[in-house]
Amino acid sequence: MFETSFSSPEVLDALGERSVVAAMLHFEAALARAQAAAGLIPATAAQSIIGTCKVDLFDVAQILRESRRAGGVAASLVARLKETVGLFNQEAAAYVHFACSDRSLIETALALVTRDVLGWIDADVSRIATTLLALAERHTALPMLARSGLQPVAVSSFGLKCAGWAAPLVGSRQRLRRAADRALTVQLGAAVGALASLEQREGEIIGLMARELGLAVPKSPWHAPREEWTALACELGLLAGSLGRLAQDLALMSQHEVGEVTEPVKAAALVASHGYPRRSSSACMAAWACAHHAPQRVAALLAAMSREDAHAADTWPVEWTDWSQLLMSAHGSARALAQMLPGLQVHPERMRAHIDGLRAQLSKNEAETCFDPALALEAGQITRQQLQLLQGELGSHPPGAAAG
Amino acid sequence: MFETSFSSPEVLDALGERSVVAAMLHFEAALARAQAAAGLIPATAAQSIIGTCKVDLFDVAQILRESRRAGGVAASLVARLKETVGLFNQEAAAYVHFACSDRSLIETALALVTRDVLGWIDADVSRIATTLLALAERHTALPMLARSGLQPVAVSSFGLKCAGWAAPLVGSRQRLRRAADRALTVQLGAAVGALASLEQREGEIIGLMARELGLAVPKSPWHAPREEWTALACELGLLAGSLGRLAQDLALMSQHEVGEVTEPVKAAALVASHGYPRRSSSACMAAWACAHHAPQRVAALLAAMSREDAHAADTWPVEWTDWSQLLMSAHGSARALAQMLPGLQVHPERMRAHIDGLRAQLSKNEAETCFDPALALEAGQITRQQLQLLQGELGSHPPGAAAG
Amino acid sequence: MFETSFSSPEVLDALGERSVVAAMLHFEAALARAQAAAGLIPATAAQSIIGTCKVDLFDVAQILRESRRAGGVAASLVARLKETVGLFNQEAAAYVHFACSDRSLIETALALVTRDVLGWIDADVSRIATTLLALAERHTALPMLARSGLQPVAVSSFGLKCAGWAAPLVGSRQRLRRAADRALTVQLGAAVGALASLEQREGEIIGLMARELGLAVPKSPWHAPREEWTALACELGLLAGSLGRLAQDLALMSQHEVGEVTEPVKAAALVASHGYPRRSSSACMAAWACAHHAPQRVAALLAAMSREDAHAADTWPVEWTDWSQLLMSAHGSARALAQMLPGLQVHPERMRAHIDGLRAQLSKNEAETCFDPALALEAGQITRQQLQLLQGELGSHPPGAAAG
Amino acid sequence: MFETSFSSPEVLDALGERSVVAAMLHFEAALARAQAAAGLIPATAAQSIIGTCKVDLFDVAQILRESRRAGGVAASLVARLKETVGLFNQEAAAYVHFACSDRSLIETALALVTRDVLGWIDADVSRIATTLLALAERHTALPMLARSGLQPVAVSSFGLKCAGWAAPLVGSRQRLRRAADRALTVQLGAAVGALASLEQREGEIIGLMARELGLAVPKSPWHAPREEWTALACELGLLAGSLGRLAQDLALMSQHEVGEVTEPVKAAALVASHGYPRRSSSACMAAWACAHHAPQRVAALLAAMSREDAHAADTWPVEWTDWSQLLMSAHGSARALAQMLPGLQVHPERMRAHIDGLRAQLSKNEAETCFDPALALEAGQITRQQLQLLQGELGSHPPGAAAG
Repeated sequence: MFETSFSSPEVLDALGERSVVAAMLHFEAALARAQAAAGLIPATAAQSIIGTCKVDLFDVAQILRESRRAGGVAASLVARLKETVGLFNQEAAAYVHFACSDRSLIETALALVTRDVLGWIDADVSRIATTLLALAERHTALPMLARSGLQPVAVSSFGLKCAGWAAPLVGSRQRLRRAADRALTVQLGAAVGALASLEQREGEIIGLMARELGLAVPKSPWHAPREEWTALACELGLLAGSLGRLAQDLALMSQHEVGEVTEPVKAAALVASHGYPRRSSSACMAAWACAHHAPQRVAALLAAMSREDAHAADTWPVEWTDWSQLLMSAHGSARALAQMLPGLQVHPERMRAHIDGLRAQLSKNEAETCFDPALALEAGQITRQQLQLLQGELGSHPPGAAAG
Repeated sequence: MFETSFSSPEVLDALGERSVVAAMLHFEAALARAQAAAGLIPATAAQSIIGTCKVDLFDVAQILRESRRAGGVAASLVARLKETVGLFNQEAAAYVHFACSDRSLIETALALVTRDVLGWIDADVSRIATTLLALAERHTALPMLARSGLQPVAVSSFGLKCAGWAAPLVGSRQRLRRAADRALTVQLGAAVGALASLEQREGEIIGLMARELGLAVPKSPWHAPREEWTALACELGLLAGSLGRLAQDLALMSQHEVGEVTEPVKAAALVASHGYPRRSSSACMAAWACAHHAPQRVAALLAAMSREDAHAADTWPVEWTDWSQLLMSAHGSARALAQMLPGLQVHPERMRAHIDGLRAQLSKNEAETCFDPALALEAGQITRQQLQLLQGELGSHPPGAAAG
Repeated sequence: MFETSFSSPEVLDALGERSVVAAMLHFEAALARAQAAAGLIPATAAQSIIGTCKVDLFDVAQILRESRRAGGVAASLVARLKETVGLFNQEAAAYVHFACSDRSLIETALALVTRDVLGWIDADVSRIATTLLALAERHTALPMLARSGLQPVAVSSFGLKCAGWAAPLVGSRQRLRRAADRALTVQLGAAVGALASLEQREGEIIGLMARELGLAVPKSPWHAPREEWTALACELGLLAGSLGRLAQDLALMSQHEVGEVTEPVKAAALVASHGYPRRSSSACMAAWACAHHAPQRVAALLAAMSREDAHAADTWPVEWTDWSQLLMSAHGSARALAQMLPGLQVHPERMRAHIDGLRAQLSKNEAETCFDPALALEAGQITRQQLQLLQGELGSHPPGAAAG
Repeated sequence: MFETSFSSPEVLDALGERSVVAAMLHFEAALARAQAAAGLIPATAAQSIIGTCKVDLFDVAQILRESRRAGGVAASLVARLKETVGLFNQEAAAYVHFACSDRSLIETALALVTRDVLGWIDADVSRIATTLLALAERHTALPMLARSGLQPVAVSSFGLKCAGWAAPLVGSRQRLRRAADRALTVQLGAAVGALASLEQREGEIIGLMARELGLAVPKSPWHAPREEWTALACELGLLAGSLGRLAQDLALMSQHEVGEVTEPVKAAALVASHGYPRRSSSACMAAWACAHHAPQRVAALLAAMSREDAHAADTWPVEWTDWSQLLMSAHGSARALAQMLPGLQVHPERMRAHIDGLRAQLSKNEAETCFDPALALEAGQITRQQLQLLQGELGSHPPGAAAG
């Protein structure tokens, strides 16, 4: 609950119960269509099944309520689907979920849901990176203090700072896509003892389903994708780490006493219930708070790898809690920054004032070695080289492509 | 989502948005009543406010939707409450949330919600401990292999095993109560600049509110309870650890090849969708899986202690996610075991068969040193002493008392 | 390695291999003396054993090297001890580690080592709290911006800030002591099948040993102290959280641009290899970095509670790694702050300048509501009340008492 | 301490202080040689520096002791190196660590140390995978119960089980190598204000150093490799997860009551100090215990990504603690399994007995659907296909190549 303030309606929907059940039905429809095409089940049965696989025909809450008694959500949904198909076409009911394991159903459905959320994350990260590169271009050699351990260590440029924030995000996006391609596959395992019924057509069926569902084909039909999923979780953790650092840096720079950047202030927030006009860094704080939870969630999923009950059909919802929360960590962090950054206000005069203030406290020699504003020109040179590299990488992966 | 299978309707309700908003209104009503009693606000205003603090009068979803714009959930609720009170009594509106900080409202409301969930956890843990002590009494000196690192190391008794499971649970219950008493207090801080309006009556007001809300009085009115909350989280983590160990031990003992205990099987689950009668250890697996997540959630809350944004009024929902999930870890684990344990089947003949089987592989001397069934008598003696101690401790804290 | 920079020679020694082996020998000597007093073993045998239990007589590295082959460190040490005792008194060798389990030896030895480290932590935390209370007294009503989410929200006082830092530390110290009393007990379990040899004198023997070793008597002789140990770990995690927050707050206040406090600067560090005089916040950064690791280490110990191999005599060194690192997190953080704080420089003029600078940006009304320097007087009143409470609590637990 | 039992002398050496200091000197020598080749420093100075960069010439303990005062280990070593070079060649001292940042020195040295440890891990994982594939080949269609949630769910084959264990390890090895190639690069940043001295020759110098040190060239000279390092940590976490699962599965299968496999027993361990011949699963338990710690250590490194002090030159040793412990988790787990697996004893008769025992409890129909031993033939077919795939992948990356 209360996630509303840290997420978006689309993603809360995508991770909801209805959405997962819809994805399960999507799987069953694709399975029936592919099995009919391969001649494993009658075409008329497939048509009945496909026609019934519509989430509006089902009572999602009931399917969940019955899941414990039925031996898992998959079993519960399959039972309801058989029943409903049987109302119209008694024979077709036997071909629902034909020779298929419950685990395949659940894992593929979660892959579908995850893919949608990753699409939104990708778009937000792309927006953040694009904005940062534009800032880097505009302020290539703008002098600013570089800090380490919260203390000034040299003069650098705001452009270089922006490029440094963008670099890991551009890299993360690429790696997330690669990891998603390996993890988000059609899973199709035979139910126990049903391997013969598939007549060695799994490869063909998986290929057809992959095309319909927009997922990848796994390296081998029996390949347990657990480590690929956990690898994808790690990538989300890395992304959250980079977003968290960006959020934290911006929050520090927008402290009242530093004031080198400020978040755009909405008139409404100015009055708030506080009764005073607060210069807020609330987007950064929210992004930071979201990102901060990712490491624990990655650890939970890594720890689950060596659990005996790992991904057993009836305990997967426990993993799913961590998984969906990890997606929300990354999404919440990316969303808050993607909405705020385009309106970020940059204050060159404050950057300069801090440099001058520091120089005034130093001996001439000290001031010139590390705190000469001209050092920003050197930083600017590096910025330009970085920009070229990063713009190339970002450009070759437009945001639309991920969800496609 | 999908938590249904690992929780109970009561707890899912208690942790829901409506429940938190109801608790907030409960706080505002208690505040108004206490401030009127102390003469800080007019009695008629208090009556209007108290009469309006009913969750049915409010649109919970709207309050949440508006929370970001309003500067937090507290601000959003207070705004709606003022508006609604004002419809009936224009003057009373000014006395809503009088001189009170937003953070006080949120933290006290979460204390109320948490107290309810802890009541259910306490009852379940009490049921588990009672059942284990009864088992220990019935099987005091029943010979059974003691194992370490999954290998037999000696003969002990099943009674001693049960007493060993019960001991940390009995201790956890007591410590959880103490920790709850320290953490679940009325919080009442003045809004910035409003301290004078309280006329140094905070102590009196807090006392009245504590009585009405059934919460404790904090050590000092300005005492930040953050470390007490996190200490309570640690106690939940410790409880989950003990429950997880019990669940794991039982799951290992109920392996098909070991079969020393078995979970009661519901006829319905026998057929399941698997098509074969599976001797299930699903309650243990669920309890184990739930418990397994607690350490990460405790770590998340410990890490949050040193965050700058910690408990800032507008980022607390991020903590609340971890907090409510930790409550659900402990509750889910306790609930699964509390429901299953009373029906646990014990199989003395399998326990004996494993001892005999092992002895047959050993030399006579070896068999007598560590694997003499008579060693169970020694274990039985210890069991009886433990039982007396534990029954005394458990008896002095009946389950009802927690929520009271 | 490299821990030198974040610890102290005493604590590195206390956690070293030699120190643990010495504690094991201390246990064996106390065991022999107590068993002789109880008439279980001959007094002459006890004298031989006690005389031989000196760490200088043993090759610590060899004991560790042989531990894997011997089946654990305890077995390895006991074998060497028997051998050495036997050189002088052949009969006495049979009474070494008489009827005692290996686990008792290891766990009691670690309790001894832990108690020593906790003594140092206690002294440092006491020093920090004392210094903070002195600062609170000196600057009771000194006006300073209160900040939330890194932004100013009101005027408060530096004294109140100091009291707020001290409060959780004073509480932590008390709770750590209580937790240590419960966890750091003599463990004395019979070796398998040797219970009869003890003639039901365990209670008496434990009492004697507890007095000699300066440890507590466990609630029951067979009480597994695992959850008490993990509870102690949680307390260390909570302490680290409070220290981390203090370190972080100070680091933020000592930023060049804020400058409300500054760490004392050693002349040597001024030049450093950097070539410029850096105003450092390195003590705070070190304390923060140390504290930051505690949550993961607590999580590792909580997770270990439900591990089958938990505290099995031959895998305990894995837990010990986390345990000793957690001790070092808390110690490193406390040490860095305890050394730096007495020299902390406070800059009232910068505190005032930030208030005035902010007020200049606000309307008169806004400035007066939350940012009136007179609000520091209100804060000062609260500070005085807090101080009285905290000085009382701190005074009733002088630092020396912990190690005693 | 006590890590000896869970590691190997080589790796303990590689992660020791002496080894890190040696790597730092290796860096300084390579830097001098490359800068001389690029004409930035005199060839005679380079020769003096190279000749002095020998760890035997330095007092490692002293360098560490002085590191706090000097402002970090890098500064401490550079000071000593300058002094020592100056003894022989006064002019050369000025060219030690020429224009180079301290951070470059530390990070490259740690890359060298890490590379060595990864080489040993790679060799062990390769040995484990090879052994598992050989077992899969020998027992392709050997009937065995497949279990989920610790209960039998079907008949499968031991060969398929072995292939399933090998698959993620083969994948992990490849990914670890790729991640290492990206993370383990020469770092070469200019000291603040010294960029001009490098005359834009960084690219050339880095190339020369990379060749000499056997590290990769970073994507850009100013590319902060933090996320690549953390990505490498994630890969180690994934490897540990797969090793932990293997260890746990083997430990469960070698329970006394299951006995489908057994660890090779060394005669020495039979007697142990326990006094009874324990059928041990100690290698598995050790491997499991080591693996179990990896998730927390990955979380610690992920959390460090967004820390302000992240990789500040003077707090990196705190990260290094987690980093070296993570390496030890993966190494300890791999080492224990690599040493034990080649001697693993497989007991087909016990596998068969469990199948038959279960069938005897089921109805004929139930027994045939899921527990027909002939199902092992189907599993065998899949095993053969998997084997071909995995042998190909494993073969194309021989173990020697990693360290090369």
